[in-house]
Amino acid sequence: MSKEALDQWLVRLLERDRRAAAKLISWVEDDFEREYIMRSILKQTNRQMVVGITGPPGAGKSSLVEALTKFYRSKNERVGIVAVDPSSPYSGGAILGDRIRMQAHGTDRDVFIRSLGTRGHLGGVTRSTLDVLRILEAGGYGRLLLETVGVGQSELEIMQMADTVVVVLNPGTGDGIQAIKAGIMEVADIFVINKSDLPGSERMKNDIEMMLNLSCDGKTWRPPVILTSVLNNSGLETLFQQIEVHQVHLLESGQRDERRKERLRLEVWRQWEDKTLALFESVWEAAKEKFRSYAEADPYEIAQRLWEERFKGG
Amino acid sequence: MSKEALDQWLVRLLERDRRAAAKLISWVEDDFEREYIMRSILKQTNRQMVVGITGPPGAGKSSLVEALTKFYRSKNERVGIVAVDPSSPYSGGAILGDRIRMQAHGTDRDVFIRSLGTRGHLGGVTRSTLDVLRILEAGGYGRLLLETVGVGQSELEIMQMADTVVVVLNPGTGDGIQAIKAGIMEVADIFVINKSDLPGSERMKNDIEMMLNLSCDGKTWRPPVILTSVLNNSGLETLFQQIEVHQVHLLESGQRDERRKERLRLEVWRQWEDKTLALFESVWEAAKEKFRSYAEADPYEIAQRLWEERFKGG
Repeated sequence: MSKEALDQWLVRLLERDRRAAAKLISWVEDDFEREYIMRSILKQTNRQMVVGITGPPGAGKSSLVEALTKFYRSKNERVGIVAVDPSSPYSGGAILGDRIRMQAHGTDRDVFIRSLGTRGHLGGVTRSTLDVLRILEAGGYGRLLLETVGVGQSELEIMQMADTVVVVLNPGTGDGIQAIKAGIMEVADIFVINKSDLPGSERMKNDIEMMLNLSCDGKTWRPPVILTSVLNNSGLETLFQQIEVHQVHLLESGQRDERRKERLRLEVWRQWEDKTLALFESVWEAAKEKFRSYAEADPYEIAQRLWEERFKGG
Repeated sequence: MSKEALDQWLVRLLERDRRAAAKLISWVEDDFEREYIMRSILKQTNRQMVVGITGPPGAGKSSLVEALTKFYRSKNERVGIVAVDPSSPYSGGAILGDRIRMQAHGTDRDVFIRSLGTRGHLGGVTRSTLDVLRILEAGGYGRLLLETVGVGQSELEIMQMADTVVVVLNPGTGDGIQAIKAGIMEVADIFVINKSDLPGSERMKNDIEMMLNLSCDGKTWRPPVILTSVLNNSGLETLFQQIEVHQVHLLESGQRDERRKERLRLEVWRQWEDKTLALFESVWEAAKEKFRSYAEADPYEIAQRLWEERFKGG
């Protein structure tokens, strides 16, 4: 493709052309003209806040994403959704099973849903997520939702990209304890106990509140614990409100800038990682045939020697 | 701890002291004297083959690991087992639920089981896995088993560390299709259809064989497809034999050396990654206060500028 054709698609993105968003996302994911594309739209991005939604499989994250989407649509806002499954190698338009439930918005041209898998390594998906969020923003999707599946470390890393992190748990499942162990407590800005029509929700709320009593000492934000039931349509308004309240807090406390700084750090590091990997691969290609024995080679010594050769003591 | 005390533990490891193995593994995982420990035992390692066992949750991997362990123990060989769960942040002696089933060997001092979680990032667990396998080998565990949970990209990366990769699937589950999509076909050296007492196992075997007809054209090793049932104690002897057959094949074909080369590449790259990250963090610390606006910063330009400053055009 010529640069002119690519520029055309970039113009169409800014004009809110849906197909342009889809095409540019695919190209970026395939590392086709990624840097050119991303640098072209940089000025149009990083203004909107990202709401992250995480929690164990089956907690009802997708139902909440759908409810949020409906809410924003009722106010005529456009919604971009990125769903990341770090354990899946698949990416695409709407591959995750959960997405089927989003078909209520399937024909709504002001809702854009994209699923991302890891395709190789976690660093890859982190970078793609950041880039896809920027593309959606440039394409005029003012409300950005980021959903992850699972409660592992990968999900925590991905949640670093959100401004407001909503952790969704279910009563009576041991989710609470799992979440604490997995370090999710530290990233949560809002707790949602979903399916609160099930027994045990009040108890779970109390457990989380007790933990927050300990962990929130001296902090400026104490995460609210909200009981929701998509089934009974209860608690959702409170959730929508609390998301707004948190975002106002981010702006007023200066934490919004802190989160942007952290995100920038992550983006710059991903660039460095790519540069280093490219260097390493060329150095390794040249060096690997010289080793006498792979069984006896000392990886520490080899790494140090190649590093010094390449960077002359850098 | 003094170097003398650490050296004492290293000596005890080589004398097959179980506690020394446990202690050294914990230290390496905590990045305490990691390089010193690993370089000290380097010469005693990388001789034994690693059998990797992967497949979807619930496929019966742990039962097969247990059966293999029993088999090797009956020949009086010592067995080291590393179980990696890339979606879990927990590490430790025997935390995974599945491990409970291994209690048959829980009091056997010639079986060592270690569970690894990701603790931060996938690169971390890859490196820890390589190091733990080396420590177990130095501690005299001649049979090394590496088990992963799941079928994602993380598991594929971990399986690069095994010499013989056994992929465990279940009949009638769609596992076969999932495995193909996830790229597991390419890493499998042996297919096991476990729980073959369930219906659909012959059909699944046929499906896999058909696929192998296409993919194994021109290759020197065609993965056998073995039906096993731990319940009926059937097929296990065939599996044990085929693992030996594959390892002889690796030695005779020179592929053993190829896999070692790949593993060395991975180990050297992990070193480079660590070095780069350390550099990046110091550079970032110095640079980050100078940015006027985090919202408008161009990560590509910053990454390039910092890189050039650091490496003077390197």
